[in-house]
Amino acid sequence: MDVASAKLIAAGLAAMGAGFAAIGVGLIFGMFLQGALRNPAAADKLGARLIFGFAVTEALGLIAAVVALALAFG
Amino acid sequence: MDVASAKLIAAGLAAMGAGFAAIGVGLIFGMFLQGALRNPAAADKLGARLIFGFAVTEALGLIAAVVALALAFG
Amino acid sequence: MDVASAKLIAAGLAAMGAGFAAIGVGLIFGMFLQGALRNPAAADKLGARLIFGFAVTEALGLIAAVVALALAFG
Amino acid sequence: MDVASAKLIAAGLAAMGAGFAAIGVGLIFGMFLQGALRNPAAADKLGARLIFGFAVTEALGLIAAVVALALAFG
Amino acid sequence: MDVASAKLIAAGLAAMGAGFAAIGVGLIFGMFLQGALRNPAAADKLGARLIFGFAVTEALGLIAAVVALALAFG
Repeated sequence: MDVASAKLIAAGLAAMGAGFAAIGVGLIFGMFLQGALRNPAAADKLGARLIFGFAVTEALGLIAAVVALALAFG
Repeated sequence: MDVASAKLIAAGLAAMGAGFAAIGVGLIFGMFLQGALRNPAAADKLGARLIFGFAVTEALGLIAAVVALALAFG
Repeated sequence: MDVASAKLIAAGLAAMGAGFAAIGVGLIFGMFLQGALRNPAAADKLGARLIFGFAVTEALGLIAAVVALALAFG
Repeated sequence: MDVASAKLIAAGLAAMGAGFAAIGVGLIFGMFLQGALRNPAAADKLGARLIFGFAVTEALGLIAAVVALALAFG
Repeated sequence: MDVASAKLIAAGLAAMGAGFAAIGVGLIFGMFLQGALRNPAAADKLGARLIFGFAVTEALGLIAAVVALALAFG
Protein backbone atom coordinates (compact mmCIF):
# COMPACT_ATOMS: atom_id res chain seq x y z
CA MET A 1 0.00 0.00 0.00
CA ASP A 2 1.49 3.38 -0.96
CA VAL A 3 1.67 6.36 1.39
CA ALA A 4 -1.15 8.38 -0.22
CA SER A 5 -3.53 5.41 0.14
CA ALA A 6 -2.52 4.78 3.75
CA LYS A 7 -3.14 8.45 4.54
CA LEU A 8 -6.76 8.18 3.35
CA ILE A 9 -7.42 4.85 5.14
CA ALA A 10 -6.02 6.37 8.34
CA ALA A 11 -8.34 9.37 7.93
CA GLY A 12 -11.30 7.00 7.72
CA LEU A 13 -10.21 5.15 10.86
CA ALA A 14 -9.68 8.42 12.76
CA ALA A 15 -13.15 9.61 11.72
CA MET A 16 -14.53 6.50 13.44
CA GLY A 17 -12.69 7.66 16.58
CA ALA A 18 -14.53 10.99 16.46
CA GLY A 19 -17.80 9.06 16.25
CA PHE A 20 -16.93 6.96 19.33
CA ALA A 21 -16.10 10.13 21.30
CA ALA A 22 -19.57 11.44 20.43
CA ILE A 23 -21.03 8.52 22.43
CA GLY A 24 -19.08 9.77 25.46
CA VAL A 25 -20.25 13.36 25.04
CA GLY A 26 -23.80 12.08 24.56
CA LEU A 27 -23.62 10.14 27.84
CA ILE A 28 -22.54 13.24 29.80
CA PHE A 29 -25.27 15.54 28.45
CA GLY A 30 -27.93 12.81 28.45
CA MET A 31 -27.36 11.86 32.09
CA PHE A 32 -27.04 15.50 33.17
CA LEU A 33 -30.35 16.41 31.49
CA GLN A 34 -32.11 13.38 32.96
CA GLY A 35 -30.88 14.27 36.44
CA ALA A 36 -31.53 18.00 36.03
CA LEU A 37 -35.15 17.31 35.09
CA ARG A 38 -35.62 15.50 38.42
CA ASN A 39 -34.05 18.31 40.42
CA PRO A 40 -33.95 21.51 38.32
CA ALA A 41 -32.96 23.66 41.28
CA ALA A 42 -29.53 22.00 41.47
CA ALA A 43 -28.79 22.15 37.74
CA ASP A 44 -27.05 25.52 37.79
CA LYS A 45 -24.82 24.52 40.70
CA LEU A 46 -23.43 21.61 38.64
CA GLY A 47 -23.03 23.58 35.42
CA ALA A 48 -19.29 24.06 35.91
CA ARG A 49 -18.70 20.32 36.33
CA LEU A 50 -20.86 19.61 33.27
CA ILE A 51 -18.77 21.95 31.12
CA PHE A 52 -15.49 20.57 32.52
CA GLY A 53 -16.52 16.97 31.84
CA PHE A 54 -17.81 17.85 28.39
CA ALA A 55 -14.61 19.74 27.50
CA VAL A 56 -12.19 16.93 28.39
CA THR A 57 -14.36 14.36 26.57
CA GLU A 58 -14.82 16.51 23.48
CA ALA A 59 -11.05 17.11 23.49
CA LEU A 60 -10.43 13.39 22.90
CA GLY A 61 -12.91 13.44 20.02
CA LEU A 62 -11.41 16.59 18.53
CA ILE A 63 -7.94 15.02 18.52
CA ALA A 64 -9.37 12.17 16.45
CA ALA A 65 -11.22 14.67 14.25
CA VAL A 66 -8.08 16.74 13.69
CA VAL A 67 -6.15 13.62 12.73
CA ALA A 68 -8.97 12.64 10.35
CA LEU A 69 -9.29 16.05 8.71
CA ALA A 70 -5.53 16.65 8.45
CA LEU A 71 -4.97 13.24 6.83
CA ALA A 72 -7.98 13.44 4.49
CA PHE A 73 -7.60 17.01 3.29
CA GLY A 74 -4.17 18.15 4.56
CA MET B 1 -4.01 -0.65 -2.85
CA ASP B 2 -4.21 2.34 -5.21
CA VAL B 3 -5.34 5.78 -4.11
CA ALA B 4 -8.80 5.67 -5.72
CA SER B 5 -9.58 2.41 -3.90
CA ALA B 6 -8.27 3.70 -0.57
CA LYS B 7 -10.44 6.81 -0.93
CA LEU B 8 -13.58 4.68 -1.22
CA ILE B 9 -12.65 2.36 1.67
CA ALA B 10 -11.93 5.41 3.84
CA ALA B 11 -15.33 6.86 2.94
CA GLY B 12 -16.96 3.65 4.13
CA LEU B 13 -15.04 3.75 7.42
CA ALA B 14 -15.93 7.41 8.00
CA ALA B 15 -19.60 6.65 7.33
CA MET B 16 -19.42 4.17 10.22
CA GLY B 17 -18.14 7.06 12.37
CA ALA B 18 -21.24 9.08 11.52
CA GLY B 19 -23.34 6.12 12.61
CA PHE B 20 -21.55 5.91 15.97
CA ALA B 21 -22.11 9.62 16.59
CA ALA B 22 -25.83 9.02 16.04
CA ILE B 23 -25.79 6.79 19.15
CA GLY B 24 -24.48 9.78 21.15
CA VAL B 25 -27.13 12.14 19.79
CA GLY B 26 -29.77 9.50 20.48
CA LEU B 27 -28.65 9.21 24.10
CA ILE B 28 -29.01 12.97 24.66
CA PHE B 29 -32.50 13.26 23.19
CA GLY B 30 -33.68 9.94 24.63
CA MET B 31 -32.64 10.80 28.18
CA PHE B 32 -33.95 14.35 27.88
CA LEU B 33 -37.36 13.13 26.69
CA GLN B 34 -37.56 10.47 29.41
CA GLY B 35 -36.75 13.07 32.07
CA ALA B 36 -39.02 15.72 30.57
CA LEU B 37 -41.98 13.33 30.66
CA ARG B 38 -41.49 12.94 34.42
CA ASN B 39 -41.25 16.67 35.01
CA PRO B 40 -42.64 18.57 32.00
CA ALA B 41 -42.60 21.91 33.82
CA ALA B 42 -38.78 21.95 33.84
CA ALA B 43 -38.31 20.96 30.20
CA ASP B 44 -38.25 24.49 28.80
CA LYS B 45 -35.70 25.66 31.37
CA LEU B 46 -33.24 23.01 30.15
CA GLY B 47 -33.84 23.60 26.44
CA ALA B 48 -30.66 25.65 26.00
CA ARG B 49 -28.48 22.94 27.54
CA LEU B 50 -30.20 20.31 25.36
CA ILE B 51 -29.40 22.25 22.20
CA PHE B 52 -25.81 22.93 23.30
CA GLY B 53 -25.18 19.28 24.08
CA PHE B 54 -26.81 18.16 20.86
CA ALA B 55 -24.78 20.64 18.80
CA VAL B 56 -21.35 19.59 20.10
CA THR B 57 -22.22 15.90 19.72
CA GLU B 58 -23.66 16.31 16.24
CA ALA B 59 -20.53 18.29 15.30
CA LEU B 60 -18.36 15.21 15.91
CA GLY B 61 -20.69 13.16 13.74
CA LEU B 62 -20.77 15.78 11.01
CA ILE B 63 -16.96 15.81 10.84
CA ALA B 64 -17.12 12.08 10.14
CA ALA B 65 -19.96 12.64 7.65
CA VAL B 66 -18.04 15.37 5.82
CA VAL B 67 -14.99 13.13 5.58
CA ALA B 68 -17.21 10.30 4.26
CA LEU B 69 -19.03 12.42 1.68
CA ALA B 70 -15.91 14.27 0.49
CA LEU B 71 -14.01 11.01 0.01
CA ALA B 72 -16.88 9.13 -1.61
CA PHE B 73 -18.12 11.80 -3.98
CA GLY B 74 -15.46 14.57 -3.86
CA MET C 1 -7.43 -4.04 -4.54
CA ASP C 2 -8.99 -2.54 -7.66
CA VAL C 3 -11.50 0.31 -7.57
CA ALA C 4 -14.60 -1.80 -8.32
CA SER C 5 -13.79 -4.11 -5.40
CA ALA C 6 -13.08 -1.21 -3.03
CA LYS C 7 -16.39 0.38 -3.97
CA LEU C 8 -18.29 -2.75 -2.87
CA ILE C 9 -16.32 -3.19 0.37
CA ALA C 10 -16.91 0.50 1.21
CA ALA C 11 -20.64 0.03 0.57
CA GLY C 12 -20.65 -2.84 3.07
CA LEU C 13 -18.84 -0.72 5.68
CA ALA C 14 -21.19 2.25 5.19
CA ALA C 15 -24.20 -0.09 5.55
CA MET C 16 -22.85 -0.98 9.00
CA GLY C 17 -22.87 2.77 9.80
CA ALA C 18 -26.57 2.94 8.94
CA GLY C 19 -27.13 0.05 11.35
CA PHE C 20 -25.28 1.86 14.17
CA ALA C 21 -27.39 4.98 13.65
CA ALA C 22 -30.49 2.82 14.09
CA ILE C 23 -29.37 2.19 17.69
CA GLY C 24 -29.46 5.98 18.28
CA VAL C 25 -32.92 6.34 16.75
CA GLY C 26 -34.10 3.37 18.79
CA LEU C 27 -32.87 4.96 22.01
CA ILE C 28 -34.83 8.16 21.33
CA PHE C 29 -38.14 6.44 20.57
CA GLY C 30 -37.67 3.77 23.24
CA MET C 31 -37.02 6.27 26.03
CA PHE C 32 -39.79 8.57 24.79
CA LEU C 33 -42.34 5.73 24.79
CA GLN C 34 -41.24 4.51 28.23
CA GLY C 35 -41.62 8.01 29.65
CA ALA C 36 -44.89 8.68 27.80
CA LEU C 37 -46.45 5.54 29.31
CA ARG C 38 -45.74 6.88 32.80
CA ASN C 39 -47.14 10.30 32.03
CA PRO C 40 -49.33 10.14 28.90
CA ALA C 41 -50.71 13.64 29.45
CA ALA C 42 -47.32 15.24 28.70
CA ALA C 43 -46.56 13.22 25.59
CA ASP C 44 -48.11 15.64 23.11
CA LYS C 45 -46.26 18.62 24.58
CA LEU C 46 -42.92 16.95 23.85
CA GLY C 47 -43.82 15.78 20.34
CA ALA C 48 -41.88 18.59 18.64
CA ARG C 49 -38.67 17.78 20.53
CA LEU C 50 -39.13 14.08 19.75
CA ILE C 51 -39.36 14.79 16.02
CA PHE C 52 -36.40 17.21 16.09
CA GLY C 53 -34.19 14.73 17.92
CA PHE C 54 -35.27 11.90 15.66
CA ALA C 55 -34.61 13.96 12.51
CA VAL C 56 -31.04 14.96 13.39
CA THR C 57 -30.19 11.40 14.45
CA GLU C 58 -31.77 9.81 11.39
CA ALA C 59 -29.85 12.34 9.25
CA LEU C 60 -26.52 10.89 10.41
CA GLY C 61 -27.78 7.41 9.54
CA LEU C 62 -29.09 8.52 6.18
CA ILE C 63 -25.69 9.98 5.27
CA ALA C 64 -24.23 6.52 5.87
CA ALA C 65 -27.12 4.95 3.96
CA VAL C 66 -26.64 7.29 0.99
CA VAL C 67 -22.93 6.48 0.90
CA ALA C 68 -23.74 2.75 1.04
CA LEU C 69 -26.40 2.84 -1.67
CA ALA C 70 -24.44 5.15 -3.99
CA LEU C 71 -21.35 2.96 -3.75
CA ALA C 72 -23.19 -0.35 -4.07
CA PHE C 73 -25.55 0.54 -6.89
CA GLY C 74 -24.35 3.95 -8.20
CA MET D 1 -9.07 -8.98 -4.31
CA ASP D 2 -11.23 -9.52 -7.39
CA VAL D 3 -14.71 -8.06 -7.75
CA ALA D 4 -16.64 -11.28 -7.16
CA SER D 5 -14.83 -11.82 -3.83
CA ALA D 6 -15.30 -8.20 -2.74
CA LYS D 7 -19.01 -8.48 -3.45
CA LEU D 8 -19.35 -11.38 -1.03
CA ILE D 9 -17.24 -9.77 1.72
CA ALA D 10 -19.28 -6.57 1.38
CA ALA D 11 -22.51 -8.59 1.66
CA GLY D 12 -21.25 -10.02 4.94
CA LEU D 13 -20.38 -6.59 6.32
CA ALA D 14 -23.74 -5.13 5.30
CA ALA D 15 -25.54 -8.04 6.98
CA MET D 16 -23.78 -7.02 10.22
CA GLY D 17 -25.33 -3.58 9.77
CA ALA D 18 -28.79 -5.17 9.65
CA GLY D 19 -27.95 -6.91 12.92
CA PHE D 20 -26.93 -3.65 14.61
CA ALA D 21 -30.18 -2.00 13.50
CA ALA D 22 -32.03 -4.84 15.23
CA ILE D 23 -30.59 -3.55 18.53
CA GLY D 24 -32.32 -0.23 17.88
CA VAL D 25 -35.65 -1.85 16.99
CA GLY D 26 -35.32 -4.08 20.06
CA LEU D 27 -34.80 -1.05 22.31
CA ILE D 28 -38.00 0.59 21.01
CA PHE D 29 -40.26 -2.43 21.52
CA GLY D 30 -38.54 -3.46 24.75
CA MET D 31 -38.95 -0.07 26.39
CA PHE D 32 -42.51 0.30 25.06
CA LEU D 33 -43.51 -3.07 26.48
CA GLN D 34 -41.84 -2.36 29.82
CA GLY D 35 -43.74 0.92 30.10
CA ALA D 36 -47.01 -0.55 28.84
CA LEU D 37 -46.93 -3.25 31.51
CA ARG D 38 -46.84 -0.55 34.20
CA ASN D 39 -49.66 1.41 32.62
CA PRO D 40 -51.64 -0.79 30.19
CA ALA D 41 -54.44 1.77 29.85
CA ALA D 42 -52.15 4.20 28.00
CA ALA D 43 -50.68 1.68 25.58
CA ASP D 44 -53.28 2.14 22.84
CA LYS D 45 -52.87 5.91 22.85
CA LEU D 46 -49.16 5.57 22.03
CA GLY D 47 -49.57 2.97 19.29
CA ALA D 48 -49.10 5.46 16.45
CA ARG D 49 -45.81 6.76 17.86
CA LEU D 50 -44.60 3.19 18.43
CA ILE D 51 -45.24 2.26 14.80
CA PHE D 52 -43.64 5.49 13.49
CA GLY D 53 -40.51 5.00 15.59
CA PHE D 54 -40.28 1.35 14.63
CA ALA D 55 -40.70 2.14 10.92
CA VAL D 56 -37.92 4.75 10.70
CA THR D 57 -35.54 2.53 12.69
CA GLU D 58 -36.37 -0.57 10.66
CA ALA D 59 -35.80 1.50 7.50
CA LEU D 60 -32.13 2.00 8.41
CA GLY D 61 -31.80 -1.73 8.96
CA LEU D 62 -33.59 -2.54 5.71
CA ILE D 63 -31.14 -0.36 3.75
CA ALA D 64 -28.33 -2.49 5.17
CA ALA D 65 -30.33 -5.66 4.45
CA VAL D 66 -31.03 -4.60 0.86
CA VAL D 67 -27.33 -3.90 0.30
CA ALA D 68 -26.48 -7.30 1.79
CA LEU D 69 -29.05 -9.23 -0.25
CA ALA D 70 -28.32 -7.43 -3.52
CA LEU D 71 -24.59 -8.03 -3.15
CA ALA D 72 -24.92 -11.66 -2.04
CA PHE D 73 -27.54 -12.81 -4.54
CA GLY D 74 -27.92 -9.95 -7.07
CA MET E 1 3.15 -2.22 2.99
CA ASP E 2 6.09 0.10 3.53
CA VAL E 3 6.99 1.73 6.86
CA ALA E 4 5.65 5.19 6.04
CA SER E 5 2.26 3.72 5.13
CA ALA E 6 2.13 1.57 8.26
CA LYS E 7 2.89 4.66 10.36
CA LEU E 8 -0.18 6.44 9.02
CA ILE E 9 -2.49 3.41 9.40
CA ALA E 10 -1.27 3.06 12.99
CA ALA E 11 -2.10 6.73 13.61
CA GLY E 12 -5.67 6.11 12.44
CA LEU E 13 -6.02 3.05 14.68
CA ALA E 14 -4.64 4.98 17.68
CA ALA E 15 -7.13 7.80 17.07
CA MET E 16 -9.90 5.20 17.43
CA GLY E 17 -8.41 4.36 20.84
CA ALA E 18 -8.78 7.99 21.92
CA GLY E 19 -12.43 7.83 20.87
CA PHE E 20 -13.08 4.69 22.95
CA ALA E 21 -11.49 6.33 26.00
CA ALA E 22 -13.93 9.22 25.58
CA ILE E 23 -16.80 6.76 26.20
CA GLY E 24 -15.17 5.91 29.55
CA VAL E 25 -14.72 9.56 30.53
CA GLY E 26 -18.31 10.23 29.48
CA LEU E 27 -19.59 7.44 31.76
CA ILE E 28 -17.71 8.87 34.76
CA PHE E 29 -19.00 12.42 34.39
CA GLY E 30 -22.47 11.36 33.27
CA MET E 31 -23.06 9.08 36.25
CA PHE E 32 -21.50 11.61 38.67
CA LEU E 33 -23.77 14.39 37.42
CA GLN E 34 -26.86 12.16 37.54
CA GLY E 35 -26.07 11.15 41.12
CA ALA E 36 -25.07 14.67 42.21
CA LEU E 37 -28.39 16.05 40.98
CA ARG E 38 -30.23 13.62 43.29
CA ASN E 39 -28.12 14.60 46.28
CA PRO E 40 -26.39 17.93 45.57
CA ALA E 41 -25.20 18.37 49.17
CA ALA E 42 -22.80 15.43 48.77
CA ALA E 43 -21.37 16.48 45.41
CA ASP E 44 -18.48 18.53 46.80
CA LYS E 45 -17.43 15.74 49.16
CA LEU E 46 -16.94 13.43 46.16
CA GLY E 47 -15.12 15.95 43.98
CA ALA E 48 -11.67 14.51 44.70
CA ARG E 49 -12.74 11.01 43.67
CA LEU E 50 -14.38 12.39 40.52
CA ILE E 51 -11.16 14.12 39.50
CA PHE E 52 -9.04 11.06 40.32
CA GLY E 53 -11.29 8.76 38.29
CA PHE E 54 -11.41 11.21 35.42
CA ALA E 55 -7.63 11.70 35.41
CA VAL E 56 -6.74 8.02 35.16
CA THR E 57 -9.34 7.45 32.45
CA GLU E 58 -8.34 10.49 30.43
CA ALA E 59 -4.71 9.40 30.75
CA LEU E 60 -5.48 6.23 28.79
CA GLY E 61 -7.13 8.28 26.09
CA LEU E 62 -4.28 10.77 25.99
CA ILE E 63 -1.74 7.98 25.52
CA ALA E 64 -3.69 6.88 22.45
CA ALA E 65 -4.00 10.52 21.32
CA VAL E 66 -0.26 11.14 21.71
CA VAL E 67 0.51 7.98 19.73
CA ALA E 68 -1.93 9.09 17.02
CA LEU E 69 -0.57 12.63 16.78
CA ALA E 70 3.09 11.59 16.91
CA LEU E 71 2.61 9.00 14.16
CA ALA E 72 0.46 11.23 11.96
CA PHE E 73 2.46 14.42 12.21
CA GLY E 74 5.74 13.48 13.91
